[in-house]
Amino acid sequence: MSNAEIRVAVLGAGGRMGSEAVKAVQAAEDMELVAALRRGDSLDRITEAGATHVVDLTVPDSTEENVRFAVQHGLHAVVGTTGWDGERLQRLEQELAQQPEVGVLIAPNFALGSVLASAFAATAARYFESAEIVELHHPNKVDAPSGTAVRTAELMAASRREHGVAPSPDATEKQIEGARGAVVEDIHVHAVRLRGLVAHQEVLLGSAGEQLTIRHDSFDRASFMPGVLLGLRTVGSRPGLTHGLDGYLDLGF
Amino acid sequence: MSNAEIRVAVLGAGGRMGSEAVKAVQAAEDMELVAALRRGDSLDRITEAGATHVVDLTVPDSTEENVRFAVQHGLHAVVGTTGWDGERLQRLEQELAQQPEVGVLIAPNFALGSVLASAFAATAARYFESAEIVELHHPNKVDAPSGTAVRTAELMAASRREHGVAPSPDATEKQIEGARGAVVEDIHVHAVRLRGLVAHQEVLLGSAGEQLTIRHDSFDRASFMPGVLLGLRTVGSRPGLTHGLDGYLDLGF
Amino acid sequence: MSNAEIRVAVLGAGGRMGSEAVKAVQAAEDMELVAALRRGDSLDRITEAGATHVVDLTVPDSTEENVRFAVQHGLHAVVGTTGWDGERLQRLEQELAQQPEVGVLIAPNFALGSVLASAFAATAARYFESAEIVELHHPNKVDAPSGTAVRTAELMAASRREHGVAPSPDATEKQIEGARGAVVEDIHVHAVRLRGLVAHQEVLLGSAGEQLTIRHDSFDRASFMPGVLLGLRTVGSRPGLTHGLDGYLDLGF
Amino acid sequence: MSNAEIRVAVLGAGGRMGSEAVKAVQAAEDMELVAALRRGDSLDRITEAGATHVVDLTVPDSTEENVRFAVQHGLHAVVGTTGWDGERLQRLEQELAQQPEVGVLIAPNFALGSVLASAFAATAARYFESAEIVELHHPNKVDAPSGTAVRTAELMAASRREHGVAPSPDATEKQIEGARGAVVEDIHVHAVRLRGLVAHQEVLLGSAGEQLTIRHDSFDRASFMPGVLLGLRTVGSRPGLTHGLDGYLDLGF
Repeated sequence: MSNAEIRVAVLGAGGRMGSEAVKAVQAAEDMELVAALRRGDSLDRITEAGATHVVDLTVPDSTEENVRFAVQHGLHAVVGTTGWDGERLQRLEQELAQQPEVGVLIAPNFALGSVLASAFAATAARYFESAEIVELHHPNKVDAPSGTAVRTAELMAASRREHGVAPSPDATEKQIEGARGAVVEDIHVHAVRLRGLVAHQEVLLGSAGEQLTIRHDSFDRASFMPGVLLGLRTVGSRPGLTHGLDGYLDLGF
Repeated sequence: MSNAEIRVAVLGAGGRMGSEAVKAVQAAEDMELVAALRRGDSLDRITEAGATHVVDLTVPDSTEENVRFAVQHGLHAVVGTTGWDGERLQRLEQELAQQPEVGVLIAPNFALGSVLASAFAATAARYFESAEIVELHHPNKVDAPSGTAVRTAELMAASRREHGVAPSPDATEKQIEGARGAVVEDIHVHAVRLRGLVAHQEVLLGSAGEQLTIRHDSFDRASFMPGVLLGLRTVGSRPGLTHGLDGYLDLGF
Repeated sequence: MSNAEIRVAVLGAGGRMGSEAVKAVQAAEDMELVAALRRGDSLDRITEAGATHVVDLTVPDSTEENVRFAVQHGLHAVVGTTGWDGERLQRLEQELAQQPEVGVLIAPNFALGSVLASAFAATAARYFESAEIVELHHPNKVDAPSGTAVRTAELMAASRREHGVAPSPDATEKQIEGARGAVVEDIHVHAVRLRGLVAHQEVLLGSAGEQLTIRHDSFDRASFMPGVLLGLRTVGSRPGLTHGLDGYLDLGF
Repeated sequence: MSNAEIRVAVLGAGGRMGSEAVKAVQAAEDMELVAALRRGDSLDRITEAGATHVVDLTVPDSTEENVRFAVQHGLHAVVGTTGWDGERLQRLEQELAQQPEVGVLIAPNFALGSVLASAFAATAARYFESAEIVELHHPNKVDAPSGTAVRTAELMAASRREHGVAPSPDATEKQIEGARGAVVEDIHVHAVRLRGLVAHQEVLLGSAGEQLTIRHDSFDRASFMPGVLLGLRTVGSRPGLTHGLDGYLDLGF
């Protein structure tokens, strides 16, 4: 395995996502795990270990410095940490301009199924008269609807607006408060909280005589790992900054 | 067929439900349709035709007079018309006391599947930590949630309260208004409106590691007819007033 | 409405699909129904009425002659009739070569949701470890699985093969005959037959920790009309032969 | 907690189910865990610890001896181990005849949702024209369909037979082998195997115009613990042998 072309350093290896990534990289036949850094470890260990790729699954406070280090040393980076606002992204683009062969993927969501479901929902939304979303999560979640559901609704609404699709028909005159859900840019979004569940989303599209349903179930953090590995395998051939794993998926038909 | 024991007069035969009932009775091998009355027809036609049973699918204004006529003439009645408030029911009970062999069924819902789904939901609700309802209807519906969903929630809540089950856990701190649905006696109820749908209801029950879902789909008015026929076949052996088709279902295990 | 640019002749107007098409064209604001032909009517009525577009919803025996007539007279054609084998298609291509501005769409399926569901399934299949199909239909259907399910399985299998995806894992050693369904090119396909249903299909994709489900429900023939109208609106700008409505859908992301 | 009336000894505490039971009993406010025995531990530890109840989650080879020990010492027993054939049950009944106050529950399934789903399916099956089952499991399962699905089908078929319900209609003339699933006493059962899943079952019931679906999802072994606790809380008041957790559920309406 020492000749693997993808030599990976995992940053944030002590966290929940990071420790899964360590296992996933170790299990991948075409990769070698050369370093696993925890909070406080020196970044120099990355280069000393001869890494070619970095996976950053740390915290918003340190992710920018980690990625800059990788880019400056010519390493490709796959980033799952949040906190990349406009300013940070701009600085990163400037760094990348100096290293035209380096690729960076920043992805808010590594679950392939979730990324595909959002893309399909956005594509299909303009072809149906009605569109709503039901998301279902464990009852410890503090926000409703989920961030993923809000983003999916925004993508669907934008596509419908752009193609002149009228808002979903709705004759409701009398409702118990909240019955019709939250309204995110004309898309009604319903949030179910149920013990036993993890993270689930159902996009419902309807026209006269037919319904299309796109559902994604996330049962376990393990679902993020195929996306992380796909990122690692692809990032080296995609110089510059890519935002969202869908940029690496082959969604043309 | 002239020896059928169940000789049926359909009242309201010109309406949507009534015309379905006419067809259903004609197709039933153990029944004979002896009269089909429309608005304005004299009730005497019922007795002249030798009916033993009456199906009332008329309007709130005339249903009481129709049923009283049936009871006074010793005929069993299956009633799907709404508008039976406490006063009317009391007067009916008094009539029935004079005719101890006559049975009357007043049922707000003849869809067997829907009646079963409500009964199962009420039974199961106390065994799970979390309970919510999602109902889905065509977009021309004016009220949300549906009356059936509200009644189901009330039945579930009553059973949970009676057995000391705590409210469903919910850590929501931050929500877009309406995201968590309408709250009907501690049960969250979500109403989806989608072109292409008719009338659907999903009861979701969850505990650590498991989920039970009870879903009923009503695609067509035809779904009410098996319940009407079951009512006609049973009402003759159940003297007095029965409220709700579940009174005729064998739900003991 | 006499200035509508899309002046439509419906062929097969006496059939079930044709009569729906007549209503759909009449209801469309940007179209005018100029002729509705039934079996035996002369095709000359199409040109006499000044049609610019033809919808062919007839029978395999007459569809080729109908479409040839349209092409030769410079009219665009949307075709839902089956029976277009390789030879017929070849002859049609030759006709079209003589009329470089004419467009013809031959579509085996006009339900937008069904076409989208198949396309999404084919796209997603290569990203998951496991893939199966459950199709559900009314119990009068004579073949199992449905043609749509077989075609969807073939598309999914082809994509998985092309990208080197291993067959879905399956440790089954002991089964009651038929339990694991029909095997269509490595994809297991299960056919449910249930009174009350029309035509439904569920594509199930799974990897460690996640599931993606793409479900299409067809409740009514009305579901084909948006696809017919989309065909009519698009065919004039797509010269030559297009096979499958997906050729007109914007599926790039 | 030392005054808890339910003083529990868990047998098989080193196994997967047993270790979950240890945690569940410890977390229950009305119980006390007084002993946790592993393979090879002396049964005397149960009585020395002052247990009032025993949970047996061991192996077929030792379960009979364990339960006999409990009964002979006047302790109530909740048993999840398999292997209780007719002979063993008969010997157990004889033991119990000597100890008229002792209760024993032998349950093949402790997931409340699953037990309820089976009971509801059996109750509802006779009211619908069509009935089928789809079960879905992880791909490491060796048998298809699952034992639970076979038992559910048998219960449903028995109820339909008893009430003279005709077999589900099915016009299939031409099928790819296996498409219509396994046939268990006239009920078609389909087995899906998908990475990411655990254990799921969907009972589909249909009549003209309506569908009733009863679905149970088992995501995690944790789902068995509420049933084990319910068993422990109830077994003391139900002398003699009870087979199946449904005997303790309040399923009358």
